[in-house]
Parts: sequence; structure tokens; C-alpha cells
Amino acid sequence: MSPQPRPGADAGAPERAAAFAAPAIEPAARLPWAARWRDYRRAALGDDLVAAMIVTILLVPQSLAYALLAGLPPVVGVMASLLPIVAYAAFGSSTTLAVGPVAVLSMMTAQAIVPAAQAHGVGVHLAAMVLAVEIAGVFVLALLLRLDVFAALLSAPVLHGFVTGASLVIALGQLPALLGVSARGSTLTELLESLAQAPGMAPHAATAVVGVGALTLLWLIRRYGLRLLRGLGLPARAAQLLARMAPMFVVVLAIAAVTALPQAVQGVALAGRVSLGEGLAFTPLWEAPAGLWLALAGPAALLGLVAYVESLAVAEALGARRGERVLPRRELMGLAAANAAAGLSGAMPVTGGFARSIVNFDAGARTRVAGVWTALFLGVTILLLGELLGALPKAVLAATIVVAVLSLVDLQPFREAWRWSRAEFGLMVLVTALTVLAGVKAALLVGVLASMALLMQRTARPHWAEVGRLPGTEVFRNVRRFAVETLPQVLAVRVDESLLFTNSRWLAETLENQAAARPGLKHLVLMMSGVNDIDFSGLDSLHQLDRTLGARGVRLHLSEVKGPLRDRLAASGVLDDLSGRVFTTQGDAWEALARLGSGASASG
Amino acid sequence: MSPQPRPGADAGAPERAAAFAAPAIEPAARLPWAARWRDYRRAALGDDLVAAMIVTILLVPQSLAYALLAGLPPVVGVMASLLPIVAYAAFGSSTTLAVGPVAVLSMMTAQAIVPAAQAHGVGVHLAAMVLAVEIAGVFVLALLLRLDVFAALLSAPVLHGFVTGASLVIALGQLPALLGVSARGSTLTELLESLAQAPGMAPHAATAVVGVGALTLLWLIRRYGLRLLRGLGLPARAAQLLARMAPMFVVVLAIAAVTALPQAVQGVALAGRVSLGEGLAFTPLWEAPAGLWLALAGPAALLGLVAYVESLAVAEALGARRGERVLPRRELMGLAAANAAAGLSGAMPVTGGFARSIVNFDAGARTRVAGVWTALFLGVTILLLGELLGALPKAVLAATIVVAVLSLVDLQPFREAWRWSRAEFGLMVLVTALTVLAGVKAALLVGVLASMALLMQRTARPHWAEVGRLPGTEVFRNVRRFAVETLPQVLAVRVDESLLFTNSRWLAETLENQAAARPGLKHLVLMMSGVNDIDFSGLDSLHQLDRTLGARGVRLHLSEVKGPLRDRLAASGVLDDLSGRVFTTQGDAWEALARLGSGASASG
Repeated sequence: MSPQPRPGADAGAPERAAAFAAPAIEPAARLPWAARWRDYRRAALGDDLVAAMIVTILLVPQSLAYALLAGLPPVVGVMASLLPIVAYAAFGSSTTLAVGPVAVLSMMTAQAIVPAAQAHGVGVHLAAMVLAVEIAGVFVLALLLRLDVFAALLSAPVLHGFVTGASLVIALGQLPALLGVSARGSTLTELLESLAQAPGMAPHAATAVVGVGALTLLWLIRRYGLRLLRGLGLPARAAQLLARMAPMFVVVLAIAAVTALPQAVQGVALAGRVSLGEGLAFTPLWEAPAGLWLALAGPAALLGLVAYVESLAVAEALGARRGERVLPRRELMGLAAANAAAGLSGAMPVTGGFARSIVNFDAGARTRVAGVWTALFLGVTILLLGELLGALPKAVLAATIVVAVLSLVDLQPFREAWRWSRAEFGLMVLVTALTVLAGVKAALLVGVLASMALLMQRTARPHWAEVGRLPGTEVFRNVRRFAVETLPQVLAVRVDESLLFTNSRWLAETLENQAAARPGLKHLVLMMSGVNDIDFSGLDSLHQLDRTLGARGVRLHLSEVKGPLRDRLAASGVLDDLSGRVFTTQGDAWEALARLGSGASASG
Repeated sequence: MSPQPRPGADAGAPERAAAFAAPAIEPAARLPWAARWRDYRRAALGDDLVAAMIVTILLVPQSLAYALLAGLPPVVGVMASLLPIVAYAAFGSSTTLAVGPVAVLSMMTAQAIVPAAQAHGVGVHLAAMVLAVEIAGVFVLALLLRLDVFAALLSAPVLHGFVTGASLVIALGQLPALLGVSARGSTLTELLESLAQAPGMAPHAATAVVGVGALTLLWLIRRYGLRLLRGLGLPARAAQLLARMAPMFVVVLAIAAVTALPQAVQGVALAGRVSLGEGLAFTPLWEAPAGLWLALAGPAALLGLVAYVESLAVAEALGARRGERVLPRRELMGLAAANAAAGLSGAMPVTGGFARSIVNFDAGARTRVAGVWTALFLGVTILLLGELLGALPKAVLAATIVVAVLSLVDLQPFREAWRWSRAEFGLMVLVTALTVLAGVKAALLVGVLASMALLMQRTARPHWAEVGRLPGTEVFRNVRRFAVETLPQVLAVRVDESLLFTNSRWLAETLENQAAARPGLKHLVLMMSGVNDIDFSGLDSLHQLDRTLGARGVRLHLSEVKGPLRDRLAASGVLDDLSGRVFTTQGDAWEALARLGSGASASG
């Protein structure tokens, strides 16, 4: 067979090319500009419209609830589900990701904007808008400076621990609203302190009835709804989607109850009329003082990281089910556009949400245009029913949040981590506990630092082996595993790792120890076939090793230095003062040094 | 020749063994217990006594000056050069390292103890003692938990940048004392602010004359002294040592001048009588409030890191000249003992100093016992001359500090870094600038984080290659470099790096892209010969990749999984649900998959 074209195997290049050529590879993800409308109508419109309707039903209570979670008026959550979705559809890469306000990001938004707004004497709404624009800025910076590599900072144990802890603490944080108690706090510690100081700790009876009632109902539907609907003869997919609509059902029920029995629910906090007009009457961004922008820059970086990684994880998980690739840099563009749109249209920070995206996926959305329909339907719904939603008790929204976030708590990763690595299991539990007890920032900081420490520990003690020659060949192997021959006065060592600051000092010490233990040694050859890179610390250690060996009368040679590294060493001249030589192959080193010594000695 | 005994080539083991067996390897480093006294007297006593006398002469002004730099009475610096030296001699490993107060650590001590002492209403002296004990605690913890790996955090660019910046800022910080101006500050920024606010910015004339005079004299001696002494016929080594005694010469001159012309130096700040009795009359440690211990724990960790790394670098540099190995864990023990002794004997934090160790080395110290003699000589000197030292102007001590620290500024590493790596050169300059402008803590924090970021960047994009079979062999090589054969429907990829959180997501994406670009692909074989480790994130990405490929009808196989990793995978069962198989060798994979397909296709 003739050689088939082989896409570039150079690391980096294919990914970059793919990122910008994406639409050419995945027609389904294309934007249907005028000419494509007919194709779109034929292939995907129907599916997209159905999915959009179903997502809208889920989105109404969620957008209101997450706005409250962020400490904002409910309508801000609606605004965050209109233009941002359209912006993501235009720039993102996932066909199923549903963008909007999500639980974890909303909690972090509250923590960022409440103190900042207070300190600069502006409303929280304006602060939320500034934050969203800054998050968009963070994404643009990340795109330009290729900072998406930092997404790796949130390693799997940190991310699972963080999501679990955040879900638990969000659920706990809803208890006051659910019971009509006035405690507040973003960690368990703060909540307990707030409870202890609260003047009236007794729950408000009517609120508690509404809240706990809604929670129980949602729980029952989640637990038995699917089975019931299937029992009624609905097909599996329809039953699943209908069961997911439970929040809207409970919302309608609650509004009906409040409207029918106004006396019974006296004193129950209501969401208040949701009016798009009010949502649009926001303070423009340019009235935000410079100090506010400055104060929110740090939080924006943190929220940006979390928003990106969470969204990417959701998009990738759903993409995997369809065999669709997610393009990380396109995702960055999509989220940048969505948050810029959020900030400019008076909304709050947004990202891809887990529950909502799954519904979108299950409902059969085919393209990102489904998001545009969702925004349209949501806008119309709020326009028509905004007045009615005013009668919705906040406790019901709190109940929907509790059920939504508790569904994110998944113990499977904990079990797997326990079986795979006790250290990483410990990290996961630590991050969970810190998120609940000490807050999001501390948990992520400790988690990232601990991940780095584990990484350092891994690269800090690279594998190395003394090598000898397989008799009659040019092949050099570990003397402890193969019957090889070695030269007297020569120690040849292969290092299987780059020489970096994490290991270079240790490696130099190790080699010094080896040399010290062999009286009569004259040459140490470092076989560099496994060394991809040398950093400045590695270079320093090579110099140091050369000096130490020199004082013992041992010369340091290198062999099999990889091409690019060899070029750099030659160009920079930094190893010109090495006491020994740089050999192309280990075989060359063997022959040159054997000529100086007394021949080979068998070993094994 | 018969196989000679080969000390364990297992990574880790030899280093550990060597750390505890050290004295057996290096007789010169042994402690001369009773029985060894005679050997010691014969072999090293004479050399050690000479070196100790010379170091003592250097130590008198240095110990006073660094105590002032740390914001403490001069006698505390003397205390820090007595017992701590003896303690290091008993537990350390270097034969030339001279332990005591050093410039950078003294500056950091001042920054830590001044605010802490103020906040807890105790004297700075007590705070310095607590800090020293806590630093000893940090070293003991590091020993027990094997945290010495964290020394690698201070990579070469960070360390060079930090030492350079700290030297510059210490020199700048001496200018007010040198000129008799009252400004204070530990960064250039603070100094300038303090100057701007100072009521009388005019220098004190007499102080400036003394200070600038001493500085000029020291400078001239350093620049021309050696040449002059050589010109007078002294042998090279004697001339070098005598030139290094310059500070003591200037001190004597200054005391003589002050004693002779008391009116001329009116208003010049003097060091004050140095009395060992006063040094011993310290507040005992147990009177320190718990809050003080707590407040100094963080600074202790930072100072410990700097003290350890700086001292180790000095010990290693001098060890290299003698072909002596330095044992990092023994150094940790030595420094722990020295700082514990410092804290308990009313002194301040200590570590191995650069200038002093070089003098000790050049003066020919043979064993660590030289340190014991130094302590003895210093004690006697202060006992006899403490009264006289009282007439020493502080400006002269400031001048000795300026000259000492500026000798640490070395531009050579900057030149080398520039030639080797622009990124690391940038890091070095950044850390230097931050140390001068923003302070030690910020500079080190940014430096360490930037080093970590560079490390992540390095491991984030591992090399990978599609491999094929060299016809007629079991050898698999990069298809882009060798004329190899490949199987249709099979993509075999070799990854040359562990699967870690820094690269696993990128790698999964890259492989997905590769698979997506080959319609008709049925099998992806990951050749794991270069994979030393898989962390939980890597495992996650393998699962994710398997699912994505599965949705495209592609199965994921592994081959050549290294022994230890294979055992862990089998024991944990975490990859049992993999769609493909785990082959022992790539050859096995080839044969099994070739049987399923239509044979090999030539390529090249």
C-alpha cells in the first residue's frame, strides 16, 4: 500500500491547527449563516427547538435561584441566560454545553462582589457586571498568552474535591433561606458563627413548611419520578426529561399555593416580580470606579480559572458520549464572549453548567443554535410570566438549589482515588474539607500548591542506572539487569529525566556519591538519551558536579545529547569549560575512553 | 577482571545510606572523640587553630554589624557566633562552612521580629530567640518528613536573583547609618518614602565623614590591598588572608580615632560597650507568649528555607573545590542544632555565611573543630576587648556591611542565564528587582511560583510520536524518522513522559485529534515505555479518551506498561473497564491487531 497522508506528529502543531480549523472538521458545529439556513432547517432545527424548550423550563427557576445565590436580584440571573448564551453559540465549540449562571460560580461571585461593592460604595449589581467583563478579559489574556495551560493547575483530585465541597457548602448555605432563619455565611464555620449570633434562631414556620415541603417534593420526584412516569407508560427518554422538569412543576405549584392562600404564607419571603425592564435599567459599566475594577481583578482570575475548568470538564464529558471533540481554545473564546456579553448586558458571570448541559444533551440539541432558541424562549417566558413569578417563595428556589447541587456530589472519584493513590485521595478529601470549612479560595490555593508539591516530588527523584555494553554490540543497558561489560576507571550513567531544578541538585549529589565510592575512577559519562531538557539549575549542577569530580581527578563527559539540546549547548557555549568531552553516541565514548584505559571488563 | 562491588544503583538508596554513613567515608569530617584526639592533634590541630584565629578577626566586626542589621544589640551577634558554631561542629557535615549571623538572614530577621515583638509587647531580642528555635523546629520537621526536597523550590535563577537583590537592598539600607540620616526601610520603596517624610534630611557631618571614610578605606584595601601586600613581598596566600582582615583594621583605626578625638565625633552613633554578661542576661524563652510563637511560625518557615539553601550552596561550592561531598540531610541536622543553640543561648537565627566560610577555607581549616576554636577565641576577645568596642561608630559597621554584601553581587550568572534561556534570565532579573522594590517575601513567592510555572510548562507538552515496526524486527520507531511499517486501522503512539495532571488533558485532546483525523481507525495503542508514572488526573484522562474513542468505534489499548505501574493498575482495578487490552510488548499488540486487520502496510 502507498503511504497515506499522515497528519503532523509534531507535538503542538496539530492541536493548534485544529483549534482554528474546527468548523471545517465538524459541520454540525457550524454557524448557519444565511446560505446554510436551509441545511440547518432540514438537519437540526426540529431537534434544537425541542431541546431549547425543555432547557428553558429548567432555566426559569435556575436562573432566578442562582442570582439569589450570588446576592443579586432574580432578574439578573435571567439576563445572564439571554445574550451570553447567544454569544457562546457564536464563538464556542461544544454543541451541547448550556451556558448561564451556575451554582459554584454564583457562590464565588457573591463572595467577590459583596465586599468589593461595599468598599467602593456601589451596588452589587454593578460589581457583578464588572466582574463578568474582567472574567472575559482573563479569558482573552489566556488566549493571547496561551495561559490555558494553567487549567492543568486544577488537577483531578483538586477539581473533584472542590466541586464536592462547594456543593455541600452551597446546600448548607440554603438552609437558612429554606427554614426562614436569618443566618448567613459562605463556609460552615461562618454559618455556625452567624447562627450563634442570630437574635431569633427559631425558624419561620410558614417558610419552613414551604421550603421543606418543596425540598421533599423535589426529592421524591428525583427518587421515584422516573419510575412512576415509566410505569405510566412513557418512553424512557421522555420520562427522563419530564422528571428533570420537576423544579418547574414545584415552582408552578408554589406560585399557585401562594396565590390561593395569601394569609397562610404571610411573612414568607417572595422572589418579587421579575421584569425584563428592570433588568435592562442597570447602571452602565463606565460608572464603576477604577478602584472597583482593581479590587475585582484578583477574584476575576480565580473565577475565570474555575469557570473555564468546570465548563471544559462538562463539555468534554458530554463530547465523549457523542464522540465529539471539544477545542479548549475555542471554549475559551466562547466563554470570553459569553462573559463579555453578560457584563455589557447587565448580567453576572456565567459558564457552562452541568445539570443544564445534560438536559440539553438528553433533549437532543444538535447544534449551538439550540442556545439561541433557548434565549429567545426564556425572554418570551419572562416577558409573559414575570409578574406571576413574583409570587414565588424564595424558600422554593433554595430547595431547587439544594437538590441541584447535591446531585453534583459523587463519591465514585473518591473510591477510585483511594484505590489508586492514597496521597491523591488525601488531597481530594483535604480540598473538600477546606472548601466546606475555610472557603473556596483557601481550598483551591492549598489544593493547587499540594498538586505542585506532588508533581515536584514525582520529578525530584528520577530513575537512573549505571549502563554497560552488551558484548559485541553498540547497545548499552542497565548493569543490574543485563550481562554487560564495563570499563575500569569509567562510570557510565543513564538518567531518565530532564535535568531540572527539582532534581538537579539531588542528581549531582547522587553522582558525587557514586564517584566517591569508586576509588580509581577517572571518567564519568552521563548518557543523556533520556534528557529532554536542561534548565539553568541543571546547568549549574553540571558545573558543580564537574568541579567536584575534577577535585577528585575524575572528568565528566556527556554522550547522546539530544539534537535540540546539543544545538543550544553549542550556541550558548555554557558547557565549553567542561573537563571532559561531549560524545555523539555512548559507543563513541566507550571507544575513546577504552583507548585510554586497559580494555573492557566482563560483568553480570 | 572479576566484577567489582557496585554500590546500589537504585535511585534514592545510596543517598540515604550515605547520609548516615558519612563519617565512615570522610575521616577528616569525623568528630575527634577522646580516642581520636591524638590523631586530630597530629593531622589538623595546627591548621584549624590558624584558621580559627583568622576567622575570629573577621567575625568580631561582622557579628556586631549583623546584629545591628537585625535590629538587635551588638552583643546578640556575638552570642550567635559562640554556641551555634559549636553545635554545628557537632552535627553538620561540611568541614569549611562557618556558621553564624549572615547578612540576608539578619535582614529577614529584622523584618520578622520587629512587627511581631511590637504586636505581642515583648522585646525584639526575645522574638529573635523564639524565631531561632522555630527555625530549628522547621529543620527538624524537614528532616523527619523529608521536606528537604523543598530546597529545590529555590531554583538557581531565583536564588541568584534573590541574593543579588538582597545584597543591593542591604547595601542601600546602610546608607542612612553611613550618612547619619534617620531614614529606615527594608525595600528601596520604603527607604525613599521614609526619606521623603524625614524631618531633617541633611546628613550628620561627622557621621558621614566617619562612614564614608571607612567605606572608602575598605574599598581601597579590597581593590588594591592584595597587590600592595604582594608588592611588599608577602606570599600569595598570606597576602590574601591579610587583605580579608581589612574590616578589623578599619575597626581598630576607628576606635583609635574616636578615643583620640572625642570632640570631633560628637553626635556620631556608637555601638556601645559589648558585654558578654549583658548578652547572657536574656529573658528566658518560656516568657514568650504563645501568640508570639504562632506569629513567627510563618517567617520561621521562610527563613529556614533561605538559610538552608544559602548555606548548602556555600558548603557545596567550597566542597567542590576540595572534592568533598556535602550531605544535605546532615547539613539540616547541623543547622537545626546551631539554631536551637542560638535560641537557647539568647542569640539570633544563624546559618552558613559566604564570606566567612571562604576565609575559613582559604585559611586552611581542616575540620569542623576549627569552629569550636573560633567560638573560644571570639569569646575571649569579647571578654577582653568588649569595653573598647563600645567606642566603635555604627557608621563603620555599616560600611563593613556594604562592602561585604556588595562582594556577593555577581553578574556572571546573569550573563550565563541570558545565553542559556531568556525565560530564566527574565526570572532572575524579576526576582532581583522585586527583592529591591517589593521585599524579600514577595520576591521569593513570585520566584517560586514562576519556577513552578516554568516546570509545568516544561512537562505540559511531552514529546510523542507515532511508531511503526522496523520491517522484520520487533523494534518500533518514530514513523517520521524511520522507514517502518504500520497497520491500517491501527494507530500506535509512544508518549515520552509520565501521564500527569500537567499534561494528561492536553495529551488526551491530542490523541483525540489524531484519531478524528483518520477515518476508518479501529485501534489506538498507547506505547507506555516512556511513562514512569500515572497520577489520578492521568487516569481520568485515559478513561475520558477511552470513552471519546469508543463513541467513534475506536478501542484504546496499552502496551509496554512498566512493571511497577502494571502492578498498580492490576491491583487497583482502575483500568479494568478499558475497551481495549493491555499488551506486554508492542510486538504482541502488533500481532494481535494484525490478525484482526488486513496485514501490514509499508511506509516511509
